[in-house]
Amino acid sequence: MTLLVALDYTSVFIFALTGALVASRAQLDLVGFAFLAALTGIGGGTVRDVLLDRNPIFWIEQPAYLAITTLAALLVFFTAHLVESRYQLLIWLDALALGVAVAAGIGVALALEQPAIIAVLMGIVTGCMGGLMRDVVCNEVPLVLKQGELYVSAAFAGAASGVLASSLGLQSMGVLGAAMAVTVILRAGSLAFGWRLPIYKHEPPKS
Amino acid sequence: MTLLVALDYTSVFIFALTGALVASRAQLDLVGFAFLAALTGIGGGTVRDVLLDRNPIFWIEQPAYLAITTLAALLVFFTAHLVESRYQLLIWLDALALGVAVAAGIGVALALEQPAIIAVLMGIVTGCMGGLMRDVVCNEVPLVLKQGELYVSAAFAGAASGVLASSLGLQSMGVLGAAMAVTVILRAGSLAFGWRLPIYKHEPPKS
Amino acid sequence: MTLLVALDYTSVFIFALTGALVASRAQLDLVGFAFLAALTGIGGGTVRDVLLDRNPIFWIEQPAYLAITTLAALLVFFTAHLVESRYQLLIWLDALALGVAVAAGIGVALALEQPAIIAVLMGIVTGCMGGLMRDVVCNEVPLVLKQGELYVSAAFAGAASGVLASSLGLQSMGVLGAAMAVTVILRAGSLAFGWRLPIYKHEPPKS
Repeated sequence: MTLLVALDYTSVFIFALTGALVASRAQLDLVGFAFLAALTGIGGGTVRDVLLDRNPIFWIEQPAYLAITTLAALLVFFTAHLVESRYQLLIWLDALALGVAVAAGIGVALALEQPAIIAVLMGIVTGCMGGLMRDVVCNEVPLVLKQGELYVSAAFAGAASGVLASSLGLQSMGVLGAAMAVTVILRAGSLAFGWRLPIYKHEPPKS
Repeated sequence: MTLLVALDYTSVFIFALTGALVASRAQLDLVGFAFLAALTGIGGGTVRDVLLDRNPIFWIEQPAYLAITTLAALLVFFTAHLVESRYQLLIWLDALALGVAVAAGIGVALALEQPAIIAVLMGIVTGCMGGLMRDVVCNEVPLVLKQGELYVSAAFAGAASGVLASSLGLQSMGVLGAAMAVTVILRAGSLAFGWRLPIYKHEPPKS
Repeated sequence: MTLLVALDYTSVFIFALTGALVASRAQLDLVGFAFLAALTGIGGGTVRDVLLDRNPIFWIEQPAYLAITTLAALLVFFTAHLVESRYQLLIWLDALALGVAVAAGIGVALALEQPAIIAVLMGIVTGCMGGLMRDVVCNEVPLVLKQGELYVSAAFAGAASGVLASSLGLQSMGVLGAAMAVTVILRAGSLAFGWRLPIYKHEPPKS
């Protein structure tokens, strides 16, 4: 198993855990857990594959991915009550999954010899779209758009770092490691220490 | 016309009716009715075709599907005021459409010789995605995720029954009939008698 | 640069401005502006290209589109505070972008020799989907579905006019001009003078 495939499985599993955690907050049944886990886990990579016209889509070629998301759903269904704050667990797992998925996203695009800007964008898409679908479907405020936190920004910085590392000639390990580390560090710093970019400050009009 | 094609037309028409009923609840104009009817009617099959890279997409190959959804919109626009409870009509039509669409979804996947797990998933996708888009766009709580009802679970059980029947060597009629019957019976039993799976019971933390 | 390509760039730029204006109302950071600008600017055309199986997707073939959406995000981020009513600016720019995108949508479909009904639908999809995604992601009431306004109706009338002009043998300029003019005039008339189609009038039941 190559590093890239390992990353893909890892990000699918962790994102699936976050989907199942959202299902636990919505008090769904086990099949609802499995549905949200699958949507979140494979959503970002599916959008990436559709946009890049990569056929078959990764989880149709290798249905083991669906076994992974179902496993994550089962795990959360039977153990989530042991966790004190499921929301804290959710946002931290989501931060980790974001980093792994951004790395997997640029890895796939670079392997297909896409230009740098498309590789960066595929990192962002793979990282952000699964969680965005999860939050839109469940009618939660998308983590992606939460005011005053680094999220898309972290994904962008991570993806750009990875693509830069690749253009400097680093090997897979360095490229994917850079993307993952930069994304997770920025997102975690934002959650733990309030790191942020300047936001748009003017009061929105009342209309 | 084969059985599979007949099922596809039927599910598109019934889902289109539900889209138009949601439009009537939102008090849209006739074009709004037609838009929501089309989105709901062809949404699930479109996602299925994009995921399976089936080209052209069914309603691009055969635009009669769009005539069907427009017809459904007209029908609801001019007769819905005769219905006492449009919400009751909506959820029961939706239950019926779910069953027909799940059968159509596995039928297409099996005809393309997809593996069993992908066929089950395509049944769920074809059945659930149109209604999910309808509810997300209209900002209603998705029927798919309503707490304590069988919906994805009914689709899953129906799709799995159909795929099982197929692997036991049954003909088209048996396979599609099994998928449809199991889905509709479970969903209807959930609506009428409160059948359900155990839900995740622990109070969500207040954070 | 052909007229069709010019229209595509124009609609992407104007829709990107509306995405960034929504980001300013949500008080996001600069990367959030760029994300919403890109989603809104290229969303409709992306759905069109995926449905028509047009590969590569327009902004993957020509990443300059992403430079355009980023430029729009920067422009709004640094100048939006000069605007008195950002919501007014948003809905009027959106009306303009709708017209340009409808024209671009039917132009692409006609160039691919799609039948008339598919060309009309691609006009509607290209015009409406970017703004719909913007509003769904930001949890705003979709402009597409606002009660008692012409929106999908304007797009439909514009797209149908363009396709009719094409079947009458008019050149590109006449076809695209008709689509754009009819769409913008109807949408603007709806905003300025309250033009509308009859809506569905019966009280929705309280269930």
